Amino acid sequence: MGSDDAYLLTASQALARIRAGELTIEGYARSLLRRIDVRDTDVGAWAYLDKDYVLQQARALDKVPMKDRGPLHGMPIAVKDVIYTKDMPTAHNSPIYKDDFPKLDAASIILLRHAGVLFLGYIADMLCPGKTTTAEFAASYTGPSSTRNPHNPSRTPGGSSSGSGAAVGDLQAPVALGTQTGGSTIRPGSFNGVYSIKPTWNAVSREGLKISSLMLDTIGIFARGVDDLDLVADAFALRDDEPSGFQSIKGARFALCKTVVWPVAGEGTRNAIARAVDILRAHGAEVEEVDLPTEFDDLPRWHNVVLQTEGETFFLPEHRTAKDQLSPQLVGYVERKAGYDHREQLKALDGIAALRPKIDEIAGRYTAILTPSVVDEAPEGVEWTGDSAFCSCWSALHTPVINIPGFQGHTGMPIGVSLVAPRYRDRHLLKVAKEVGKLFEAEGGWRRNV
Amino acid sequence: MGSDDAYLLTASQALARIRAGELTIEGYARSLLRRIDVRDTDVGAWAYLDKDYVLQQARALDKVPMKDRGPLHGMPIAVKDVIYTKDMPTAHNSPIYKDDFPKLDAASIILLRHAGVLFLGYIADMLCPGKTTTAEFAASYTGPSSTRNPHNPSRTPGGSSSGSGAAVGDLQAPVALGTQTGGSTIRPGSFNGVYSIKPTWNAVSREGLKISSLMLDTIGIFARGVDDLDLVADAFALRDDEPSGFQSIKGARFALCKTVVWPVAGEGTRNAIARAVDILRAHGAEVEEVDLPTEFDDLPRWHNVVLQTEGETFFLPEHRTAKDQLSPQLVGYVERKAGYDHREQLKALDGIAALRPKIDEIAGRYTAILTPSVVDEAPEGVEWTGDSAFCSCWSALHTPVINIPGFQGHTGMPIGVSLVAPRYRDRHLLKVAKEVGKLFEAEGGWRRNV
Repeated sequence: MGSDDAYLLTASQALARIRAGELTIEGYARSLLRRIDVRDTDVGAWAYLDKDYVLQQARALDKVPMKDRGPLHGMPIAVKDVIYTKDMPTAHNSPIYKDDFPKLDAASIILLRHAGVLFLGYIADMLCPGKTTTAEFAASYTGPSSTRNPHNPSRTPGGSSSGSGAAVGDLQAPVALGTQTGGSTIRPGSFNGVYSIKPTWNAVSREGLKISSLMLDTIGIFARGVDDLDLVADAFALRDDEPSGFQSIKGARFALCKTVVWPVAGEGTRNAIARAVDILRAHGAEVEEVDLPTEFDDLPRWHNVVLQTEGETFFLPEHRTAKDQLSPQLVGYVERKAGYDHREQLKALDGIAALRPKIDEIAGRYTAILTPSVVDEAPEGVEWTGDSAFCSCWSALHTPVINIPGFQGHTGMPIGVSLVAPRYRDRHLLKVAKEVGKLFEAEGGWRRNV
Repeated sequence: MGSDDAYLLTASQALARIRAGELTIEGYARSLLRRIDVRDTDVGAWAYLDKDYVLQQARALDKVPMKDRGPLHGMPIAVKDVIYTKDMPTAHNSPIYKDDFPKLDAASIILLRHAGVLFLGYIADMLCPGKTTTAEFAASYTGPSSTRNPHNPSRTPGGSSSGSGAAVGDLQAPVALGTQTGGSTIRPGSFNGVYSIKPTWNAVSREGLKISSLMLDTIGIFARGVDDLDLVADAFALRDDEPSGFQSIKGARFALCKTVVWPVAGEGTRNAIARAVDILRAHGAEVEEVDLPTEFDDLPRWHNVVLQTEGETFFLPEHRTAKDQLSPQLVGYVERKAGYDHREQLKALDGIAALRPKIDEIAGRYTAILTPSVVDEAPEGVEWTGDSAFCSCWSALHTPVINIPGFQGHTGMPIGVSLVAPRYRDRHLLKVAKEVGKLFEAEGGWRRNV
């Protein structure tokens, strides 16, 4: 493979070649930019992209002596356009913030820039090709989107991290940052046929990510392999209290948790879950179906109450200053269209809080929980980014969740399934996902053909 | 009173004169700037102050026709230097962020700028004289401070909102924004002899306030009267579910809650609490001493666990990139010097969460809870900003707390006491504080003499 085809590599593969002197960072960047050139009209993943600046960064990174480079040196990462970056504008897909350019790096961006090269000071250690598209403030469910699913441009890539999912699914970037408040990382992961992780809430600093809901928003990561997620997890210093005891699929125990929203699951997801269970069992794992206690039944409603009541606080400034430029959904939050008062807000907050140690205890009995990522394959159209029914409970519970690709719906579009672990067992979850992912990708039936 | 003495006014008084055409905003600004000139060497409340810019803003505000003005038009407010402002640098009292100038307004700043003049678009409706001093990242307990207590320059003004408390206490600004994570709003309120409120956690958007602890940080407000706090509460759209039923001190019921840390209370605070109880009873209120259930005894420790473990996440970027410029306390958080792991973090988070509905229920039985604000009057020296023992539990519980001045310690320095209400009863608490404050200021024994 020459550097022309470098866009086909995962980040881990590309970094190995860069370290071996077989690939320059500029060559890698040019390969990705050519891929973007070819595909951008169909996919539209980018909210902001300055190609000259990308190449300028790449050349600067190439000049850093090998001995001074950190583990992520030259790793290209795409950033969802709700996360502040000093060197690029941040517009939140909102006309209110069009061309807004806060001179501020989010904590996640600082960590990625500096990953491994502490001793060099402020050297960009990340090649950031640009900012990816987002639903308005990462919060709107609907509204015009310029981003299309790379596997079928008539379908949504999912939201709200639309561009991050699509860019990674379409080989335009090996890794991307997104966010999740409902299902904004797991759902586009599933729809675009890539891995995506929503780490434990608050395990990664959300500094510099515009707030939609303080109790729900989480930084998410997209990649085409678990090794790449691990690289970013290292940069973010994600760590469990103790090493994972996981050894192999053989002998592992999974809880199949269909959750209270299972009735909305479509045929694609029902088949994916059935196939996932078969594969795990065929490789020697136990899979036990587990019904969560009935006290978990309120979670979908409580998630919505928290989302809307916190939205009232966090979109108030935009409502006060530019209501006519705010979507009706967000105006509705501020104006309490759903009628939720503080009493209901506190009942939901306190109710969810009481369930968190309980789900940790339940999940802790198993290697991981297996649960749907989505209702079905990506729906037709790009106006609606899809249902987050299977994601929102885990967002509320603050557990880490990872989407694993490998299955497909009846039109051949990708479908993923999720693994869930107790809070702060992110590294354990990644370790399990790596082995499970090998099997699902090999035997699940879906193949990437972009 | 001519405009020369306008610095003596509360914001409500000054705004009334401005509306009546008796005071120009420029005249008001010049009066405050002269006060600052006279006192700045002794007090040192300002991290950043551009006098020409203040006057330029003031003249622009004077030109806005009366009919187009909002309720806060011309209100001067000082802003703690951990809150982002588009037109001034934000340095967090950290060499890492010296001269940093993010082009971003915090949500609280946007709301204040626009208070009441939505229809005019982006007109500054707030006269911001500058940024007030802060402890490093609003998080360090110790370290060199340039700010001194206006009532005695050999003593601390308290922290971490040192400058906000001192500026309001010294008549250099009628109102200021601060923050509280442990006791950073209530303590400087007490030490400087002013009112300060820590609203319900998350009732005011913390967007654009650098994170120290997500579960604890709260925007706070300082003023010399409850009317002024109400003005800002309006701008922040603080609202209770239902109107306060409070009518008068006569017939009101207060719970005296000494809390588990009462043994550390000094003579000044013991006398202040005793005097407060006497005054309330003399005016016809019932005061009942209430011991919180023993399950609340873990709160001081849990608060510290949350503070340190969240600090690990939120100061990681600075630790990675500029550890040598970070205080040993914050380095200790990132490096887990206290040894707290995620298991302890979750135990503390979940434990505190379970207590929140319980304190709401207990507080809801009374007009308000009466509790100490501080251990005693401001200690000697400016290296240590004082003990937050009586504040940290309420910060963890997310209840609104207001410091009411009126008492004094054995050297004549101000001491305040706190009132506490259930979450999202902020407006009720302000209403009660207004009547209680009149009595404490009249009969508590302390008089402002700066």
